[in-house]
Amino acid sequence: MSELRKDLVKNNWVSVAEHRALKPNDFPIAKKALESSVIGGFCPFCEGNEQFTPPEIASYRENSEPDTKGWLVRAIPNKFSAFELDGQLEENRHGIFCNYNGLGKHEVIIETPEHNIDFHQLSAERMEMILKILRDRYNDLAADERIKYIQIYKNRGIFAGASLEHSHSQIVALPLVPAENQGVIDYYNANQRCLLCDILAQERSDERLVAESAEFILLCPYAPRFPYETWIIPKKHSEHFGSITAAEMQDLAKIIKKFSNVMVESLGDPSYNLVINTAPVNVAYQPGYHWYIEVTPRLLVNAAVEIASGIYINPVAPELAAAMLREAMASKQ
Amino acid sequence: MSELRKDLVKNNWVSVAEHRALKPNDFPIAKKALESSVIGGFCPFCEGNEQFTPPEIASYRENSEPDTKGWLVRAIPNKFSAFELDGQLEENRHGIFCNYNGLGKHEVIIETPEHNIDFHQLSAERMEMILKILRDRYNDLAADERIKYIQIYKNRGIFAGASLEHSHSQIVALPLVPAENQGVIDYYNANQRCLLCDILAQERSDERLVAESAEFILLCPYAPRFPYETWIIPKKHSEHFGSITAAEMQDLAKIIKKFSNVMVESLGDPSYNLVINTAPVNVAYQPGYHWYIEVTPRLLVNAAVEIASGIYINPVAPELAAAMLREAMASKQ
Repeated sequence: MSELRKDLVKNNWVSVAEHRALKPNDFPIAKKALESSVIGGFCPFCEGNEQFTPPEIASYRENSEPDTKGWLVRAIPNKFSAFELDGQLEENRHGIFCNYNGLGKHEVIIETPEHNIDFHQLSAERMEMILKILRDRYNDLAADERIKYIQIYKNRGIFAGASLEHSHSQIVALPLVPAENQGVIDYYNANQRCLLCDILAQERSDERLVAESAEFILLCPYAPRFPYETWIIPKKHSEHFGSITAAEMQDLAKIIKKFSNVMVESLGDPSYNLVINTAPVNVAYQPGYHWYIEVTPRLLVNAAVEIASGIYINPVAPELAAAMLREAMASKQ
Repeated sequence: MSELRKDLVKNNWVSVAEHRALKPNDFPIAKKALESSVIGGFCPFCEGNEQFTPPEIASYRENSEPDTKGWLVRAIPNKFSAFELDGQLEENRHGIFCNYNGLGKHEVIIETPEHNIDFHQLSAERMEMILKILRDRYNDLAADERIKYIQIYKNRGIFAGASLEHSHSQIVALPLVPAENQGVIDYYNANQRCLLCDILAQERSDERLVAESAEFILLCPYAPRFPYETWIIPKKHSEHFGSITAAEMQDLAKIIKKFSNVMVESLGDPSYNLVINTAPVNVAYQPGYHWYIEVTPRLLVNAAVEIASGIYINPVAPELAAAMLREAMASKQ
């Protein structure tokens, strides 16, 4: 019999199989070729096509002008942004309904000038550079008091929602705080303690531990929504991703490189998401946040139960997932 | 500029494009062949293979024995159920975590003995038969006081989470009430009115109306999570799907047949989910529920933003979706 587990962070209930050792190849979507976004050989993210994107916001480049060749990492506005940082937040009513204007910002970080280098193939140095530009963009966006929440994420592969193949991450800056991480606030209010710190304390020697580095713990959460879902949590209590230190970035880059390679090798080159969860900005201070990264391989598609009830059915127990990933991480240099 | 809209039912925020007429073929996943589940030509749902499923719970058949040939619609336990209706609900604690045992039931309705007939190709009479067996299963499961919520749904196509091609629906009976429809309770408590009834009153002559039959209204919701998401709402206030009348079932079968054909023809044969949202059972009475069907074409995959923040980015305004679907429904006999 399986268990229904409560995810204290998301306040979700998750059905977790107890002792069913489903392997990646048992899934309907085990390995699926990325649909190429190169229409007629053209990709706007490739080096040399800088004039086909909006003007860059920031970049790492050596001795070349903005929006020309010679860059390593490039931050640009999302050409198809749903948000615009213009004016103030306005509430409008239509009968019983209400809406806000789409105040906000949507940016893209192009992670390499080369089309055919996949994320996990980037060097640890390049990953560190990506983290630095993400931190800088985070802090820059957080300086605008109209922004209340900043979501940094990567969609990799068609089953993770990627529409372009060329390796990239995205940043959405929103005028409101999503309710999804309310669990950490509720936990703090009930216990006067940080939930993520308490999870680290309990899980560090637990069967759900995947790996530990100087600055981070990798673990499969107690109530994962997705098979092989893994969290990367800074050991040091820290609310904002924007305050990540140089030492943490160096360490994190190595961990992400290693773990993304383990995913590609052990889970059959899956689609996956990588999300940075962090505290809101420019709102009244609420203790309880602790930033962390959530990595979700997308071996299953969210079906009707997940989208309608919010109850996820996960056929892989995190204890089994962690055992497999732990061994793969340990055997990898 | 787009709008962030609040879905009063789900308490979700949705970013809706205001005037961007994205067409189905613009999506990365416009049309994708169903991955065949017939391994070596074998499908456990096909007529003649009754002995490869658990014994049937109910069926419509003429002059033949249970678990033999000669049926039209067949209800069976899900062979890979995550739930078991055995014992009582128990809470277990593991340090700061807690879980419930997987008390519940998971059933499958096989909708046709023929493998190669897709759902939208079934006759209205067959669809009515499916609705009857679903209603009967709902009422039977609701009679067990350990069951608190019954979710009826269909996953059609690989991008909707279907793992078997042969046309079928599913029923999950859960020992707890998901929080997802909390909005209808909040609305009732604030206004002493039914939210769905108020939506019907406002939307009946609105630009988001898709179609109207004797007993039902079809509309694109104000804050849809998915492009072309459509709700089918009974005009008569009714809390439980289990109390659907014979006249409503006859009318609903015709509407579902027509709308599923419109989806297949107008949206490029998409994957889709169909979900019946209904009131909880065996819990203290709370006014505010009004059962309805949510139909979600899955032209986009839930990406990182959706799964991490619960904020959906929907590139098709429901007003444009409704205009297209309304015309297609009107021109179809």
